[in-house]
Amino acid sequence: MAKKQGEVKLLGIRGSPFVCRVVIALKLKGVEYEFIEENLGNKSDLLLEYNPIYKKVPVLFNYDKPVSESLAIVKYIDDCSKGDPMLPTKPYQRGLAHFWSNFIDEKIVPAVRKAVFTLDEVEREKGIEESLEALQFLENELKSKFFGGDEIGFLDIAATIIAYWVPIFQEVTGLQIFTSDKFPKLYNWSQELINHPIVKESLPPREPLLAFFKGVIEGLSASK
Amino acid sequence: MAKKQGEVKLLGIRGSPFVCRVVIALKLKGVEYEFIEENLGNKSDLLLEYNPIYKKVPVLFNYDKPVSESLAIVKYIDDCSKGDPMLPTKPYQRGLAHFWSNFIDEKIVPAVRKAVFTLDEVEREKGIEESLEALQFLENELKSKFFGGDEIGFLDIAATIIAYWVPIFQEVTGLQIFTSDKFPKLYNWSQELINHPIVKESLPPREPLLAFFKGVIEGLSASK
Repeated sequence: MAKKQGEVKLLGIRGSPFVCRVVIALKLKGVEYEFIEENLGNKSDLLLEYNPIYKKVPVLFNYDKPVSESLAIVKYIDDCSKGDPMLPTKPYQRGLAHFWSNFIDEKIVPAVRKAVFTLDEVEREKGIEESLEALQFLENELKSKFFGGDEIGFLDIAATIIAYWVPIFQEVTGLQIFTSDKFPKLYNWSQELINHPIVKESLPPREPLLAFFKGVIEGLSASK
Repeated sequence: MAKKQGEVKLLGIRGSPFVCRVVIALKLKGVEYEFIEENLGNKSDLLLEYNPIYKKVPVLFNYDKPVSESLAIVKYIDDCSKGDPMLPTKPYQRGLAHFWSNFIDEKIVPAVRKAVFTLDEVEREKGIEESLEALQFLENELKSKFFGGDEIGFLDIAATIIAYWVPIFQEVTGLQIFTSDKFPKLYNWSQELINHPIVKESLPPREPLLAFFKGVIEGLSASK
């Protein structure tokens, strides 16, 4: 991976859990990078040119070569930079990491979204139920301090959204999905994760995020 | 990967494009395996126990250790068996292979499903439009005989559904989505792929698949 300042660029927005995955990975690997703030209300030519399919952040540029999609980017950073690997090196553990990271994006994130960003009672209840069921699978999967063992790894990075964003969603909506009662192991893990020095300095500040998501939820009510 | 007969088991159904990905990967790597036919109408205890989240095939067992999800399984086979790698070894190409394989499952497959398995005119038109747009991105991405270069690789395996199943869907429904006129490069690629000796012997026979999907489509009409 490029070592010189300015040769690695990350196009993103500060409050996104998907962008944050990439920030954590870059910091863990000690890669210097330039952060380019995207404006999703008025998407940049850079974004439209280099991620024409999803038109979403993050996009990482290494020597101008773009990679999109947060999990693909984190794997890419792992593949092309030195330092301890973030993905397990043993094939079976690696296979599980691929599986569980997809599970977070395909099951947990949509279920939580359904629970949080709706005014429809039935839809919300369905979202809560699906979230609880999905989190239980992850709770059962956690066998050590981190998913990566004693140190944080690929799956921990993928799951940051649960540790940091879901509690914010709960505070905004009053929902009780991810609590220490329901998921004691996962809750302890989340505290370890968000207090890990690299993760801590990578997370966007809590207050502006709270305010932002309050706005989103109030916007929903206003437009009903 | 297990070398002895019976130590690698694949739980699947013959007609599934996702199971077929795993079959191709195992054959490319010369791995002996036992195929266990699943009955999706009456799911086996094996499936419910080892893939409780998705309850879907394929599930691969290597020395009894299960891995689910076709793309995760193919990566796992690649990681733990000898022979030429299926995923690119260069990090950037590897990153792109991750990106494009997800694109197939997240964009192309849902768009084609929407076009094919509906009786709703508006929905179908939307599905066709999304399929054409998505296939165009893939057409632009194809730079050589195969996505993997001169030899088939991970992304070719992921895209088998386009080469073999989509034409069957078209024959059943009369839709024209993936044609040599619209996608000349992708069409040539599809012919190379389905005539590749390993792929050819891995594909389920065409006639029963045609009959099966005719049944599915007629079932849709009957239940309107």
